[in-house]
Amino acid sequence: MTSRLEMLRGLVRDVPDFPQPGVVFKDITPLLASADGFQAAIEELVASAPEDIDVVVGMEARGFIFAAPVALALGAGFVPVRKPGKLPGDVVSQAFDLEYGSTALNMHRDAIVSGARVLVVDDVLATGGTIGATAKLLEQLGAELVHVSVLLELGFLEGRQRLQELGIHNCSAVLKV
Amino acid sequence: MTSRLEMLRGLVRDVPDFPQPGVVFKDITPLLASADGFQAAIEELVASAPEDIDVVVGMEARGFIFAAPVALALGAGFVPVRKPGKLPGDVVSQAFDLEYGSTALNMHRDAIVSGARVLVVDDVLATGGTIGATAKLLEQLGAELVHVSVLLELGFLEGRQRLQELGIHNCSAVLKV
Repeated sequence: MTSRLEMLRGLVRDVPDFPQPGVVFKDITPLLASADGFQAAIEELVASAPEDIDVVVGMEARGFIFAAPVALALGAGFVPVRKPGKLPGDVVSQAFDLEYGSTALNMHRDAIVSGARVLVVDDVLATGGTIGATAKLLEQLGAELVHVSVLLELGFLEGRQRLQELGIHNCSAVLKV
Repeated sequence: MTSRLEMLRGLVRDVPDFPQPGVVFKDITPLLASADGFQAAIEELVASAPEDIDVVVGMEARGFIFAAPVALALGAGFVPVRKPGKLPGDVVSQAFDLEYGSTALNMHRDAIVSGARVLVVDDVLATGGTIGATAKLLEQLGAELVHVSVLLELGFLEGRQRLQELGIHNCSAVLKV
């Protein structure tokens, strides 16, 4: 297991000064480009999921790459969280601060029935802004956020603490830095 | 088979006047939200893929939802095509006209080795602008675009003809309208 995680860790590339000077960006595209690495990452995310998930929610855009395969593996539906103006029809919206700026996230109002058991999957837990906003969208819909699974947690940004402040205590990361 | 395709067709929702008046948007989110529908869609896309695909390429953002699972099912690597400013490091870029506006698409310069056999997967074939730009990115990298597989072809926008003008003759759609 350790060697598998080391393999995955070796497929995350550090890119200095992106998207702005002083930031070291964690680039997961080498992991995606590795058939074995991508498969292993999805298997780890699936293994971290609780039982009886009805819906997997993923956030635009990189989150889709992990959340969609996890939904398929769990036999759950997939619901996308998108940036404003992308979803047609009636939506719920949640403004939030990004690591680098601010924006809002939308979800279809009819996307999830009240009481549904939801797993949120994302590539990276950074400040927790995206996941926190998604949790508030789910709250608006009356859905139950059962668990959050991410590939990579950037511990120094303290996103996990922010999620705990929002009452989200069930969060697992395949890799942590 | 017909009944399966009818099931999938019934999960695509028409949304009038989105993103602008007079346009009927084909909303695939009901299909994604259906565990059976999403699974069936991926199986159909996988069935349309040629043998010996090295890399599956998907385009931001909705394309990721279909391309990533197809890559996993084929045991291939996944390479994302992204909007400008999203990929860190050295990229190749291709400007193109959208159905509603214009933009550019980027791919990492080191994402695909010359001669690799590539399958492009997207949700919708509309005017062919996105897929055409992706084909030109692959050409810049010396990769071989073996096949294009989409969930839904909007025949009246004549994207298939545009792709043929670019020399792309191997294109299949699960659903056509």
